[in-house]
Amino acid sequence: MSDVLNLVLFSGTADKLHAAATLAAGAAAMERPVNILVQYWALDAFRTERIEGNLGLSWDATADGTNRPVGGTKSINWLESLRMAKELGDVKILACTGSMDVLGIERSELDPIIDAEGGIATFLMAAEDGQIVFI
Amino acid sequence: MSDVLNLVLFSGTADKLHAAATLAAGAAAMERPVNILVQYWALDAFRTERIEGNLGLSWDATADGTNRPVGGTKSINWLESLRMAKELGDVKILACTGSMDVLGIERSELDPIIDAEGGIATFLMAAEDGQIVFI
Amino acid sequence: MSDVLNLVLFSGTADKLHAAATLAAGAAAMERPVNILVQYWALDAFRTERIEGNLGLSWDATADGTNRPVGGTKSINWLESLRMAKELGDVKILACTGSMDVLGIERSELDPIIDAEGGIATFLMAAEDGQIVFI
Repeated sequence: MSDVLNLVLFSGTADKLHAAATLAAGAAAMERPVNILVQYWALDAFRTERIEGNLGLSWDATADGTNRPVGGTKSINWLESLRMAKELGDVKILACTGSMDVLGIERSELDPIIDAEGGIATFLMAAEDGQIVFI
Repeated sequence: MSDVLNLVLFSGTADKLHAAATLAAGAAAMERPVNILVQYWALDAFRTERIEGNLGLSWDATADGTNRPVGGTKSINWLESLRMAKELGDVKILACTGSMDVLGIERSELDPIIDAEGGIATFLMAAEDGQIVFI
Repeated sequence: MSDVLNLVLFSGTADKLHAAATLAAGAAAMERPVNILVQYWALDAFRTERIEGNLGLSWDATADGTNRPVGGTKSINWLESLRMAKELGDVKILACTGSMDVLGIERSELDPIIDAEGGIATFLMAAEDGQIVFI
């Protein structure tokens, strides 16, 4: 059994980042290595000037018929969960170089919670045959 | 080979729930155990007062340039597919306790298709090294 | 180790298709077989009359607080990445028969990059115990 849990973060809304962070924290608490690739709108959310802000919610929160009050998105403290995951275990966070190019984001603009830059090949090599979850 | 298929349901729109239900039914028909964690907007959709209703479609259905008529979302009978999956095989559906807290949803509000409540750790333990699909 | 990488394409926006295509290309370059099931709005995007067009971006691109200019979505050449993946290695693309029914799409309307039609069972059989990524 390869027990690496691999997450690709694509979405930059607080609810999806929270779902990702709690999976990472759960796996780290079980002593599983966690390997995270941050892409696209998630990468945008990891910029220093945005990461502590209100990142909004996914489309599902407002899709037809939903409109359920969630008590404010600030109660979804995804960043605290992700920091906890890093304290609990071996959690590596990689900024996707391809997305940095597409979005025009420099490493210096990203929060230091990011450990390194890397591409898909780096991510897939580290992923081994562990689970890959795209969020 | 661990043959457990693990699904995390995050989205509460009919199209994504249908994609999830058909994966579950396909795996159950192949005699694979299926382990489902219901989170966030999917959990909201599993409330008794919403589960039989029109849950709308994902953003992709209306994204720029799409606007393709789908013949009405009621033709997407995701709940029937999920019930069939449970009849076909070993399909366990867990309400995510973290999401119940965030959304303020009580167990008594949820449809009885939900088998139990549980957190990320419970889900990950049951997931073993089987595939995890986040929908 | 089963090294098949399995992708379920659900979303039809250029950013998500690009994320999928780069994963496919990365895996193909590592000599891993890639098995792709094209569903719902992704299938709609694979219609001959849409596949070369502007497919827009996911909700995340415009979610509250984002609105970051991406330099035009035409710079996201997902189709070129997917064609490269097919040249690099063993990449099979399956049109989901269930989605063809729901959306009323005929095989003759689909771009020839699609290799065959098939259902969930066909996909899951080919997926073996490799990773499944839903995008």
